[in-house]
Amino acid sequence: MKTIKIVKIGGNIINNEKALHSFLADFAELKGPKVLVHGGGKLASEMATKLNIPVTMIEGRRVTDAQTLDVITMVYAGKINKQIVAQLQAHNTNAVGFTGADGNTIVSVKRPAKPIDYGFAGDVITVNPEIPTLLINNDVTPVFCAITHTKNGQLLNTNADTIASEIAIGLSNNFATELYYCFEKPGVLTDVENDDSVIEHINIESYRKLKADGVIFEGMLPKLDNCFHALKNKVKTVHIGSTAMLFNSKNKHTSLQLL
Amino acid sequence: MKTIKIVKIGGNIINNEKALHSFLADFAELKGPKVLVHGGGKLASEMATKLNIPVTMIEGRRVTDAQTLDVITMVYAGKINKQIVAQLQAHNTNAVGFTGADGNTIVSVKRPAKPIDYGFAGDVITVNPEIPTLLINNDVTPVFCAITHTKNGQLLNTNADTIASEIAIGLSNNFATELYYCFEKPGVLTDVENDDSVIEHINIESYRKLKADGVIFEGMLPKLDNCFHALKNKVKTVHIGSTAMLFNSKNKHTSLQLL
Repeated sequence: MKTIKIVKIGGNIINNEKALHSFLADFAELKGPKVLVHGGGKLASEMATKLNIPVTMIEGRRVTDAQTLDVITMVYAGKINKQIVAQLQAHNTNAVGFTGADGNTIVSVKRPAKPIDYGFAGDVITVNPEIPTLLINNDVTPVFCAITHTKNGQLLNTNADTIASEIAIGLSNNFATELYYCFEKPGVLTDVENDDSVIEHINIESYRKLKADGVIFEGMLPKLDNCFHALKNKVKTVHIGSTAMLFNSKNKHTSLQLL
Repeated sequence: MKTIKIVKIGGNIINNEKALHSFLADFAELKGPKVLVHGGGKLASEMATKLNIPVTMIEGRRVTDAQTLDVITMVYAGKINKQIVAQLQAHNTNAVGFTGADGNTIVSVKRPAKPIDYGFAGDVITVNPEIPTLLINNDVTPVFCAITHTKNGQLLNTNADTIASEIAIGLSNNFATELYYCFEKPGVLTDVENDDSVIEHINIESYRKLKADGVIFEGMLPKLDNCFHALKNKVKTVHIGSTAMLFNSKNKHTSLQLL
């Protein structure tokens, strides 16, 4: 089986045009099949504010009313996704932009309104990897934004970390999947103030202990839960760190495994 | 060679949610390979106005400054394109949304600033039909919005009629292409006030005469020029009329041929 890299980039890259362009130039050089996944949180909030649409976050997650969903669709699938695709083309990487609606790739259900009503927020139920696989096998790099659909015509705002893990899982029958979560830190830290405190290896057992000891705290937990969900579902390796880990395997970062 | 329908829809459908949903339900039922092309003029202008970005039109064409290009990318490639894709999926038509940047499908150059500076407006120079062809051969319907790219990272606003004819030309080596321009009239009219005055057949010779006699006037000329450009470049048939012509071949409309 061919190896494929599924790379999720975070707000620290998306929100900074220079950082994004520099990252995409490097990403284009990565050899072999690859997939890029992005959100676009801050730009969506800025656009909502410009349009006088209130931005509501509960526990770090966006409440997506109908107007906000429109903004997200415009910013994620329009502005950001197409800028990324055009930049990759400039670097001779043949990219095609995707939401979960394109190719019926990611089907989700609207999250139940209780206990918290997040509005048009989607929880993934099915990944159909056929169309991305077809494109990947023809040297195309799919670029996914954080939007899915219900298959009944409704688009849904969906967590980009979840999209990345679900896509990786969906591709694992045909590829040896390597999942990379790039964010503003060099990895999972024991001391959030100290970038040198990267935990280089985490497995299910040590994760349990890190949680029990309160070393890993709230914001990190859904990300790590996503990682272990992926590992339990045939994803070969999962890595968390800065984008540098993609281009230099010796760069210190966090690698996760089951055992 | 398999027949393929390339269908361009206009503002009268895009700007009316009910009309769009009803059209897409019918379009999904069309048998055989197909491609949909859309612009989204009015919604882009509305969004620009909401964002206090001035809307400037010269001779019916939009002047696209950097801010306006962002709006167009958000509205065309985001909001409209993804709503169409999600609706088609709901009707069991497997669609994938495209700009010309996706799959490097349509490469254009920025229109010269003289005699009129239209800003980030693109004139098509190359169509690469490989990725759409691959998808079409796998029962996918590409949905194109009116945006192209320079291959140097720049997106460009591009006339949707032109996109439709260039895509049709690009697909003509592998398919028998039928190009349909749907708009608010039942066809090309001798009397713009009278919907019964449809000219059912136009060829190069009669087109020349209709122009000379002033029967066909300004707004219609670029559309018809596009049609004849397509016919001169291997597109099999071109039709202009209401969407009804797609679903009932006996519906009165304008058919174009070279001779």
